[in-house]
Amino acid sequence: MNIDPAVDEPDEPELSLLYDDFKREHLTPLWTQLNDLMPIQPTPQALPHVWRWDTLYPLAQRAGDLVPVGRGGERRAIALANPGLPGTAYASPTLWAAIQYLGPHEVAPEHRHSQNAFRFVVAGEGVWTVVNGDPVAMRRGDFLLTPGWNFHGHHNETDQPMAWIDGLDIPLVHYTDTGFFEFGSERVTDEATPDVSRSERLWSHPGLRPLSGLQDTVSSPIAAYRWEHTDAALREQLELEDEGQPATVGPGHAAIRYVNPTTGGDVLPTIRAEFHRLRAGAVTRVRREVGSSVWQVFDGTGSVRMGDQVHRLATGDLFVVPSWVPWSLTAVDQFDLFRFSDAPVVERLHFDRVQFEDAVR
Amino acid sequence: MNIDPAVDEPDEPELSLLYDDFKREHLTPLWTQLNDLMPIQPTPQALPHVWRWDTLYPLAQRAGDLVPVGRGGERRAIALANPGLPGTAYASPTLWAAIQYLGPHEVAPEHRHSQNAFRFVVAGEGVWTVVNGDPVAMRRGDFLLTPGWNFHGHHNETDQPMAWIDGLDIPLVHYTDTGFFEFGSERVTDEATPDVSRSERLWSHPGLRPLSGLQDTVSSPIAAYRWEHTDAALREQLELEDEGQPATVGPGHAAIRYVNPTTGGDVLPTIRAEFHRLRAGAVTRVRREVGSSVWQVFDGTGSVRMGDQVHRLATGDLFVVPSWVPWSLTAVDQFDLFRFSDAPVVERLHFDRVQFEDAVR
Amino acid sequence: MNIDPAVDEPDEPELSLLYDDFKREHLTPLWTQLNDLMPIQPTPQALPHVWRWDTLYPLAQRAGDLVPVGRGGERRAIALANPGLPGTAYASPTLWAAIQYLGPHEVAPEHRHSQNAFRFVVAGEGVWTVVNGDPVAMRRGDFLLTPGWNFHGHHNETDQPMAWIDGLDIPLVHYTDTGFFEFGSERVTDEATPDVSRSERLWSHPGLRPLSGLQDTVSSPIAAYRWEHTDAALREQLELEDEGQPATVGPGHAAIRYVNPTTGGDVLPTIRAEFHRLRAGAVTRVRREVGSSVWQVFDGTGSVRMGDQVHRLATGDLFVVPSWVPWSLTAVDQFDLFRFSDAPVVERLHFDRVQFEDAVR
Amino acid sequence: MNIDPAVDEPDEPELSLLYDDFKREHLTPLWTQLNDLMPIQPTPQALPHVWRWDTLYPLAQRAGDLVPVGRGGERRAIALANPGLPGTAYASPTLWAAIQYLGPHEVAPEHRHSQNAFRFVVAGEGVWTVVNGDPVAMRRGDFLLTPGWNFHGHHNETDQPMAWIDGLDIPLVHYTDTGFFEFGSERVTDEATPDVSRSERLWSHPGLRPLSGLQDTVSSPIAAYRWEHTDAALREQLELEDEGQPATVGPGHAAIRYVNPTTGGDVLPTIRAEFHRLRAGAVTRVRREVGSSVWQVFDGTGSVRMGDQVHRLATGDLFVVPSWVPWSLTAVDQFDLFRFSDAPVVERLHFDRVQFEDAVR
Repeated sequence: MNIDPAVDEPDEPELSLLYDDFKREHLTPLWTQLNDLMPIQPTPQALPHVWRWDTLYPLAQRAGDLVPVGRGGERRAIALANPGLPGTAYASPTLWAAIQYLGPHEVAPEHRHSQNAFRFVVAGEGVWTVVNGDPVAMRRGDFLLTPGWNFHGHHNETDQPMAWIDGLDIPLVHYTDTGFFEFGSERVTDEATPDVSRSERLWSHPGLRPLSGLQDTVSSPIAAYRWEHTDAALREQLELEDEGQPATVGPGHAAIRYVNPTTGGDVLPTIRAEFHRLRAGAVTRVRREVGSSVWQVFDGTGSVRMGDQVHRLATGDLFVVPSWVPWSLTAVDQFDLFRFSDAPVVERLHFDRVQFEDAVR
Repeated sequence: MNIDPAVDEPDEPELSLLYDDFKREHLTPLWTQLNDLMPIQPTPQALPHVWRWDTLYPLAQRAGDLVPVGRGGERRAIALANPGLPGTAYASPTLWAAIQYLGPHEVAPEHRHSQNAFRFVVAGEGVWTVVNGDPVAMRRGDFLLTPGWNFHGHHNETDQPMAWIDGLDIPLVHYTDTGFFEFGSERVTDEATPDVSRSERLWSHPGLRPLSGLQDTVSSPIAAYRWEHTDAALREQLELEDEGQPATVGPGHAAIRYVNPTTGGDVLPTIRAEFHRLRAGAVTRVRREVGSSVWQVFDGTGSVRMGDQVHRLATGDLFVVPSWVPWSLTAVDQFDLFRFSDAPVVERLHFDRVQFEDAVR
Repeated sequence: MNIDPAVDEPDEPELSLLYDDFKREHLTPLWTQLNDLMPIQPTPQALPHVWRWDTLYPLAQRAGDLVPVGRGGERRAIALANPGLPGTAYASPTLWAAIQYLGPHEVAPEHRHSQNAFRFVVAGEGVWTVVNGDPVAMRRGDFLLTPGWNFHGHHNETDQPMAWIDGLDIPLVHYTDTGFFEFGSERVTDEATPDVSRSERLWSHPGLRPLSGLQDTVSSPIAAYRWEHTDAALREQLELEDEGQPATVGPGHAAIRYVNPTTGGDVLPTIRAEFHRLRAGAVTRVRREVGSSVWQVFDGTGSVRMGDQVHRLATGDLFVVPSWVPWSLTAVDQFDLFRFSDAPVVERLHFDRVQFEDAVR
Repeated sequence: MNIDPAVDEPDEPELSLLYDDFKREHLTPLWTQLNDLMPIQPTPQALPHVWRWDTLYPLAQRAGDLVPVGRGGERRAIALANPGLPGTAYASPTLWAAIQYLGPHEVAPEHRHSQNAFRFVVAGEGVWTVVNGDPVAMRRGDFLLTPGWNFHGHHNETDQPMAWIDGLDIPLVHYTDTGFFEFGSERVTDEATPDVSRSERLWSHPGLRPLSGLQDTVSSPIAAYRWEHTDAALREQLELEDEGQPATVGPGHAAIRYVNPTTGGDVLPTIRAEFHRLRAGAVTRVRREVGSSVWQVFDGTGSVRMGDQVHRLATGDLFVVPSWVPWSLTAVDQFDLFRFSDAPVVERLHFDRVQFEDAVR
């Protein structure tokens, strides 16, 4: 977005004068910056990057010791700051990803905002997220939603700290000037600690919709997608593949998308979330897509190729794939990964494209 | 639809001559039949009626002894013939409902048709429905789909007969001349007897969609909605109501709609299916709707009021509610009922209206 | 729908007894009537048929002399009664088509009904249809809408009679028990006689939507589609074809669909309306479709083949094509035809199929 | 987006060390920047600003003398550079607006890009825009579309220069890394100069859709929305208001939205376009909306209030209203304004909100 006027400095005095007049009148010529503004294909400033869980988690622990959680800062969340987007706290131009850390018996106060949020738990348990008064237990492998403008807070009921990943559309909302924020209760509004949230009791029955909930909702009404369901769905896909049935998205590659049961579409209007499982030895086709995504390894070991670089990966590691960067996954042993992306934004605005590298050659 | 020309017989000879000329030229005046054709409100020929399971089932048994199943007749199905629609085999102008009976080790051959079909099992087990090569076990409380143009057959793997309810849109399809039919294999194309169908293994995970199935489908891809899920969903609604939470559709009245997970909408383009549970003593508001529905008692005892008549009901009993007939349910003990209707047709064509009797007075 | 029990009369006494018991209990076996109920392909009772304008119009004139218009009969409309649907006044199982005749200075009183209606004017002018208080002039070539539940009446402001075609979904609404009717004012509620209706002034500007009308509507808000626009659209298509541009639906075959500007879809939820123009000598591919349609010749001469029969056609002639009957049009000179059909019903319920005869052979 | 680390500089050495470690590991804490990132309501960096036509046009003329048009720079377009977004050429974070100037007999070569574009002509004529080979005349008051990935070029057929306004989604596409660009022919691919484009001949008939164009399109197929239609639509709204009919969007305030006739929705997936006409003396309610818009005065005089500032306006003047800035228009004499905005983006992502100032007080 930064345009260097030096590269196209006009020689002639008359032109120079014209450019000065443009500047004074808050005008900018297209012809001096066309290549930057409208490149042949996406040339993201964001870079592919890997953050290691064994670096991330200790830093979050240190923050837990030094920084209080509560009104004002609101959350002890440490964001992935893409090295190609200096001065920001953004994983990509549209996506925010952070590790959030809550010490024993701590409470993160309630608030709400236009920004859509989710949590994904790579390890631990003992925290409840309270969404509009509904306490939602957080456990390893769970995917939890806090859609825009829902009050929410977190409280740790145990003597152990707990950390998880927050994903939001903060960068997009900030850039487009579309965000509102409101403070809520200092403590969570319901301190009960049920195993299952009320939203799940109403909505998490496959193919069954309550007659009290026939109005479609913009975001999913399911507050928590539990690991046992995700795991079962992926296991069944691989077993169906073993039986010669169509079920996987590629050889040895099972995958589900988390969806809104009222529409079958994405869980949030700006964020897509998926879970992928590769058999040991499986390799995905090299693919590139318009739009960016963030992945977290949930289990197993393997590697990702992004552009020309290959990165070994282990549990908890996070990486970002900027727009149009070719990527491929390779599994050493069974390899489980969580993914989120801005695909709903790209698709709703009809900018989506996908390309497979083998198809290009 | 039957128009009696007698009632408006013209007196004058010239008019009489005109009416004769109309008839010869295949013309009919509107003014002599307006009241019949365009009544103030729906005046269905179909009548509210109850069929008793303890009458129905023995008749099906007798048919099992006397009538072979197989090519030609295709199915040993005995349809509810509404007393108000003489000469037809229709439960209502749009809905077909039948008891189907399959003796020990019998096979109903494969075929397919435009007509959309489902099965609901009020008792028994041991039959597999094979839908496009996917064997689907049938057990008490299960709701099973055979959407239009899917090959399907049934085979009984046990030494016991089994009976269940078939629901289809045969009357509507017949009336609108929209149906096609094709014979298939004499025997089912996959004689395996798994507990769970492949469709369920791929699709029956709450809020999770396989990445191999991102294309929305006209009908639900779930071949069987299992009783344990339906039962759990209803139980949770009543428990949430006990906790003071919004969950039921009315006091003491839990209900779910079976839906297509790719859209959140009805399972079939022409048929809506629901399951209702009333607490002992609960009474629903008197309600009338445009469109007809068929109910089957699954468990418990209670009664239905249709128009001015009240009918006691027991497990297996079926009743039909024609369009715009006021109805209400009363539960003696916990009362479980399956319901299907033509509501998707009425809604897609924008003829839907609902009225509550208490709201009218 | 009429089932002849004779053809499958059982021989054995036990079976005979069973069938008697079925009848007494309001039950009908499927196996005795499968072929009638679920044929291999649609076998409509409705027949292809042509009604001649030079027969129809004089009969309407005679009715004008003998039968008053007004409260009770409501409309002097004479319906096409398909010879294959005896005892009804239906052009097809779903469609009603009638010639309506209004004498000099006569008034057809206001009423409203769930049934969706349109008018098409093959000749004449001088009548205003008042739809929800908006007076709409009727002129040759105009297509006018009266969507369900809009009050409407007609009044003839001239010393000449006027006749036109009414199209409604009366048969479908009657069959499905979905209709309501309400009487309105004895006279029309606005006797003004503007050239252009208020609905057109607000809505008939190509690609422009009033900011006061951003809510989508089930039916089109345009009360009249004027002949000059239809004619121009068809003329442009043929000229574009002359210039080698893609524009026509087949060689020498221009066609438009009347649409709802708030959605781009059909003008009414149950009725599709189109206008077709064939160059002299043009012949359309032989085609068959699920669902029925009614055509009226607007101008020119030509013929229609329906099944094995060919019918010469002239201005004003009407014909009905039942479901799945192959049809083709041939133009002698430039041949203009109006068409309406139940295609929105067939498509919304996902029963649509099309087949070209040349593709089959 | 720029975060000043100074304001939250930690005092304690341990914390300081932690923040250094964050930085080295490409991490940023949320708690130090929450207020900037997630403000209580949108706090756009973009500022309300007015650009005067009598400044803009002479600068464009000077550019016409000094800067060639053609391959490389591609277009002689001079963009509004919002004073609150230094270093960019953006009118708002999502919208690009520029004056484009084409000298006598000049040609702007063909290219295509993902970015969606339109032109609006405040004065002049004589240029044809060729969109996918379809030559489209440009005249005063016309609104012309070049949806994403359509090849397009411009050529001036006259001895006079011509200038107009270009609107695009360049900033949004650049920020989200979603853009592709491809060079095309050096000259336009069809040098014909018809009055009416082929797209209009096919699509600009009110309520009529060609049967050859039944597939809905993401963007409108109409290449030019002509002034005579826009003018007539607005005039009719004011006349209907005079007659006491509901037609305007507010007292003395007529307005239309340009729409895609295949859907009734916005002409482009990212840009909404409207035209507003105020009677002399009319004042609009003070309103604020999420999302930004750019206006150009087409005719008449009046003023705009944005926030606390009031600006007098004359023909050709442009102004930008950033997100959530309250605005109101006042007409001195009849006041015609063109508007475009990013509303489709805001609405598709469900961030839309509107507030009226009188409603707040």
